[in-house]
Amino acid sequence: MQQPHGHTSKAFDQDLADLRNLIADMGSFAEAAIEEAMRCLVEHEQPAAEQLVEADVQLDELEAEAERRVVELIALRAPMADDLRDAIASLKIAGVVERIGDYAKNIARRVRRLPETGDIEPLSLLPEMAKIASSMVHDVLKAFIERDPDRAKAVCLRDDALDDFYESIFRTLLTYMMENPQNIGPSTTLLFVAKNLERIGDHATNIAEMVYYAATGERLAESEG
Amino acid sequence: MQQPHGHTSKAFDQDLADLRNLIADMGSFAEAAIEEAMRCLVEHEQPAAEQLVEADVQLDELEAEAERRVVELIALRAPMADDLRDAIASLKIAGVVERIGDYAKNIARRVRRLPETGDIEPLSLLPEMAKIASSMVHDVLKAFIERDPDRAKAVCLRDDALDDFYESIFRTLLTYMMENPQNIGPSTTLLFVAKNLERIGDHATNIAEMVYYAATGERLAESEG
Repeated sequence: MQQPHGHTSKAFDQDLADLRNLIADMGSFAEAAIEEAMRCLVEHEQPAAEQLVEADVQLDELEAEAERRVVELIALRAPMADDLRDAIASLKIAGVVERIGDYAKNIARRVRRLPETGDIEPLSLLPEMAKIASSMVHDVLKAFIERDPDRAKAVCLRDDALDDFYESIFRTLLTYMMENPQNIGPSTTLLFVAKNLERIGDHATNIAEMVYYAATGERLAESEG
Repeated sequence: MQQPHGHTSKAFDQDLADLRNLIADMGSFAEAAIEEAMRCLVEHEQPAAEQLVEADVQLDELEAEAERRVVELIALRAPMADDLRDAIASLKIAGVVERIGDYAKNIARRVRRLPETGDIEPLSLLPEMAKIASSMVHDVLKAFIERDPDRAKAVCLRDDALDDFYESIFRTLLTYMMENPQNIGPSTTLLFVAKNLERIGDHATNIAEMVYYAATGERLAESEG
């Protein structure tokens, strides 16, 4: 379709607000997926884990919807440079939230790799780590909706705590593997789960950096990929 | 800035071609980074690995440049819906290539985790896997530049081979760990390297799916995240 001349700022702002709400819904979905994946892992809920893996397609669809809306928004409202950047930043954030959902899906996929019986000591450490990761996702989306740079910055600071948590779980799992070769299989599974949680924190941090930049025009120090 | 009325298709096409070439350069950078990271790992080149980690910022800058150009392209040329989708797809692909570079960086970061002396048997399996991954990156960018759906599809098919390769390396590393607790530390490092390579294949596949869709309007089966 052809561009109208200029754009109705009010209409654009409403469309953008709707888009941001859609992305917030994606965030809630991803947050719930992380918690459910951990529940499945701890309670060895294989069927529920499979359902969760299948449910991820909904998040992919929400991202596609966000993209459709951004294209429509730009084509219809012909936003000026700043608004355009804002719309494209929203699109990028939707993409990151979708990837956070992928990490939750990857955790759910690993449930079947754990033995059904016998408890794996270090498993008890992971839900706490997951809580930090999902709270980062929760808070960064809140910061995004409220365009709150301080809240965004606070999320970045928590990423260091999450990385330390990961390192300590990594050491614990290594020790556990060395104690008994039988522990090696399940421990590598938990190693990947811990890594997925650590990556979720990195992605929440990336969003926080985008939110901070959009709100202040200044860059926060880049987080380590 | 305000939109001009309509857009000069020829000027838009030229801008888009320049953008695609920029993204192709990003792809070459990422491909070279994968190969250099593997060289550093195999030859235990710690200083070169650190240089590679630092060099990744260049890829981040290229992605930022691609984003600037897309915003400018849209603001100046006011493309119609299909062109707009094309521009936004290019932006997304630039983002995926940047993430592929992050995986190469992660591999380089792990060089220091390997013991300087004594060889780790399964290490010899990884360069072959890396060759498949980097060739997928090479070919999918070629498919992107040439808008070649068949080449894109071929990249997707190779991802299964890469996944099988990963599974076999995973098993080998598990066995190697069980043979001797001393092998556990270095093996977990290699486990993560193999996982990074497998993820690079997933990202190349994601790009291939976007290229295929853009060229045919049809979706290839979604690759497993």
